[in-house]
Amino acid sequence: MSTDLFIRNVRPLGIDLVDIHVSNGRIGDIGPGLKPPTLDAEKIDGSGRLVFPGLIDAHAHLDKSLLGLGWQRNEVGPALRDKIDNERRMRVERDIDFHQQTTRVARRYIEYGTTHIRSFVDIDTDIGLKAFEGLMRTRQDLRDQVTIQVVAFPQSGMLCRPGTVDLMEDALRNGAELVGGLDPSTIDRDPARHLDEVFRMAEHFDVDIDIHLHEPGDLGAFSVELIAERVRAVDWRGRVTISHAFCLGGIDEGYLQQLIELLLENDIAIMSHGPSGTGTIPPVERLYRAGVRMCTGNDGIRDAWGPLNMPDMLLRAFLLAYRNNFRRDEQIEMVLDIVTNGNARVMKLDKYGIAPGMPADLVIVDGETHVEAVIERPPRWLVIRNGNVVARDGTLVDQSDPQDPASGP
Amino acid sequence: MSTDLFIRNVRPLGIDLVDIHVSNGRIGDIGPGLKPPTLDAEKIDGSGRLVFPGLIDAHAHLDKSLLGLGWQRNEVGPALRDKIDNERRMRVERDIDFHQQTTRVARRYIEYGTTHIRSFVDIDTDIGLKAFEGLMRTRQDLRDQVTIQVVAFPQSGMLCRPGTVDLMEDALRNGAELVGGLDPSTIDRDPARHLDEVFRMAEHFDVDIDIHLHEPGDLGAFSVELIAERVRAVDWRGRVTISHAFCLGGIDEGYLQQLIELLLENDIAIMSHGPSGTGTIPPVERLYRAGVRMCTGNDGIRDAWGPLNMPDMLLRAFLLAYRNNFRRDEQIEMVLDIVTNGNARVMKLDKYGIAPGMPADLVIVDGETHVEAVIERPPRWLVIRNGNVVARDGTLVDQSDPQDPASGP
Repeated sequence: MSTDLFIRNVRPLGIDLVDIHVSNGRIGDIGPGLKPPTLDAEKIDGSGRLVFPGLIDAHAHLDKSLLGLGWQRNEVGPALRDKIDNERRMRVERDIDFHQQTTRVARRYIEYGTTHIRSFVDIDTDIGLKAFEGLMRTRQDLRDQVTIQVVAFPQSGMLCRPGTVDLMEDALRNGAELVGGLDPSTIDRDPARHLDEVFRMAEHFDVDIDIHLHEPGDLGAFSVELIAERVRAVDWRGRVTISHAFCLGGIDEGYLQQLIELLLENDIAIMSHGPSGTGTIPPVERLYRAGVRMCTGNDGIRDAWGPLNMPDMLLRAFLLAYRNNFRRDEQIEMVLDIVTNGNARVMKLDKYGIAPGMPADLVIVDGETHVEAVIERPPRWLVIRNGNVVARDGTLVDQSDPQDPASGP
Repeated sequence: MSTDLFIRNVRPLGIDLVDIHVSNGRIGDIGPGLKPPTLDAEKIDGSGRLVFPGLIDAHAHLDKSLLGLGWQRNEVGPALRDKIDNERRMRVERDIDFHQQTTRVARRYIEYGTTHIRSFVDIDTDIGLKAFEGLMRTRQDLRDQVTIQVVAFPQSGMLCRPGTVDLMEDALRNGAELVGGLDPSTIDRDPARHLDEVFRMAEHFDVDIDIHLHEPGDLGAFSVELIAERVRAVDWRGRVTISHAFCLGGIDEGYLQQLIELLLENDIAIMSHGPSGTGTIPPVERLYRAGVRMCTGNDGIRDAWGPLNMPDMLLRAFLLAYRNNFRRDEQIEMVLDIVTNGNARVMKLDKYGIAPGMPADLVIVDGETHVEAVIERPPRWLVIRNGNVVARDGTLVDQSDPQDPASGP
C-alpha cells in the first residue's frame, strides 16, 4: 500500500515550480503553493528539481541481456544473420537463466526511472518458450515497480524455422500481449506469407503488432507497403508499430512522402532509437511533425549483439538527438515528448502524465532544464511508481533479489 | 611539489593487476606485488580498479563554452554560417569573459580525468585577441593540472575578413603553438590562397597546422589534395592535422584509397569525433588500420553551436564507437588507443603512457574492463597529474576558483 506523498517545489517540463499531492497512488492536486495535506503524508522537498513522468522504453529486449554475467568480450561478425545465429547458439551452450537475466536488467531500468517497458522476447525452436517463461515470471515479480508489456518475437525467423509459429501461439495463449514480426524478405525470404501469418495471429488473439524492419531502401519500403495493405484489409489501424524502419531514410523524397501518407492513413507508429552506425535512419522530426506516432527504446542492453546500449531512457533521448543532430531545445523537447507521451500512446497507456487523476509515476532529478537533464543525465534522485518511492539516488529501495532468497529488505 | 605515491592493485589496459610506484611526479617501477617503498609515500589501494593514462582531448574549443552562464536555449539556424555569425554577435553583445569561461570548462575537463587538451581559440576582427588572452591566462593558472595547447583559429574566416591574419600573427608571437585553418573553399571562397596563407604562417612561426574541414564529398577531397601538395612542398610531414574530414566518407572507393595514400605519404593526421547527425564521416577503422595517425576530441562544449557535447573523453570514446557502429571489443580498444596514444602523438607528447619514466598522469575508475568503462562511464575515482592527486570522485581537489579570490583551498 502506498502512503500519501506531498512533493513540494518541483518543475514539470514547461511549467513553473509546483507542489504535487499524491494520494492512493494517484496524482491529486498540482499547483504552486498548495496547502500541505492535513492527513499523514510523507513530505518531500524537491528544492526546485526537475520532474518527469515515469520514463518508458517502448522497444526493449530484456531477455537478451547478459548483465551481471561478467564482461562479455564481443567478437561477433558484422552481418545480422551472424548475430542472430551466434546468440541462439550461445544461449543453449551457456544455459542462460532468463528469469535471472530479465530481472537484473529490469531492476536497473527501474533505477534509471523507467516505469513501463515493451519487451520483445525471442521465441525459436532451440530455446522454445524458456525466455518467454523467464520474462513472464519477472513481469509478475516486479509488477509493483515496472509494467512490462510482452511481445512474442520470432528473432530467428518464423516460416524458415517450422514450429516457431506454434510456439508463438503458445506464448500468446499464455500472456504475451503482442505479436512480433521481423524482416519479412531478408529473414523469412517470403514477405507476403510472413506478414499474412503475423496478421493472422494478431486477428486470432486480438493483439497489436510490432514488426522489426531493418531492410534497407526500396526493399524495406516495399515491406512498409505490404504492412499498410494488411492494416487496411483487416482494419488494424492504431495497432501496428514498425520498429527501426531504416528504409525511410534511404528512399527518394517523393516516395517518402507517399509512405508518410500510408503511415498516417493506417495510423502505423514508427520506432526509432537513433541507432549506432552510419546507415540510413528514419527522418524523426519530419515524421513527428507530419503527425506520425513516434516511439523509441533502448533495444538490447549489453547482449550478444554488442555492448553499446544502457537501460537509461535519458541516455536514449540523448542518442536519438545525437544521431539526428537535434541541437535546438525545441527539437530535444520533441525527443522528450517521444520518450514519454509518444511511448505511452504506443503502449496504450490511457492514464499517463503529470496531471490530476493520473497514476503517480514520477522521476525527480537535479538540473537546470529538462533538456539539460538529457545532456547531463544526472542520477535519478527519486523514482516514484504508483505513489511509492521505488528508487533513490539511482539505487532501488527494495534491495531484495528475487533470485537470491538469502537477500532481503 | 608532489609526494611519492604507492598505488596498489590497479589494472592497465591489457595487463593484469599491478602496483605502481610514483616518485618525483614520474612513474617508477610497475609490476605485480611490488615492495612498498621505504621512504614516505602516500599509499593508495586501487582494489582492482582500472587505470588509464591521462585522457587527452585533441580537438577542443574551450573559448566557446557557455557553461555556468545559465541554460542557453538554442534556437540557432541549421547552416554553418548561421552558427558562426550567431556566435560572433552573441559574444560581443554578452561581453563574454573568456578567462572565466575557459577556466570553468577546463576545470570540468580535469574532473573527467583529462590531462592534456588541444584547444582552438577563435580570432576574428570583432573580438580580436580577447578569447586568446583569456585562454592563455587559464593555461597558465591551471598548468599544474592540465596542459593546454593553443591553436590560433580563424573561425569567422581569414581572407574574407581582412585584419584576421594580423591578429593570428599577434597570437602566434604571443604563445599560440599552432595555426588553424577552416574550410578553404566554402568559408574563404579561395582554397589555394587560404591554404597558402596558413602554410606561410606555419613556416614563419615554425608551428604545426590543424585545419577544420567540413566540406563534403569531392569538394572536401579537393581540399585534402591541396593540403597534401603544400605539405610536400615545404616538407611539413607529421605536422598537419585535418579535423572532421567528413569528405572521406563521401567519395568513391578508388578515390578514398588515393587519398589514404596521400595522407600516409605526407603523414597527415585525421581528427574524427563521431559527430552528431547523419552526414558522412571518415571511415575511422579503415584509416587507423591503414596506418593513418588518428586523433579525437569533444569539439565545443555547451556553446552557441549546441548543447550535445560534454568534457568527458570516455563519453567521446563511446560516441566515436557509436557513430561508427564499433561493437566488438577490439574496435572499442582501438578507440581507446586513439583517445590516449593517438591524441598524444598528434600533440607531440614524447613522454606519455603507463610505463617507467613517464609522467605520472593516471586516471583510476571502477569497472570490469576498460571497454566497459567506455560504456558505463563511471565517475573518475582518482585523477593524478604529474604525481599529484588533482581530482577525487569526479570533484577537483583544489576547489579554489581563480575567478573568485574569496574562495580558497
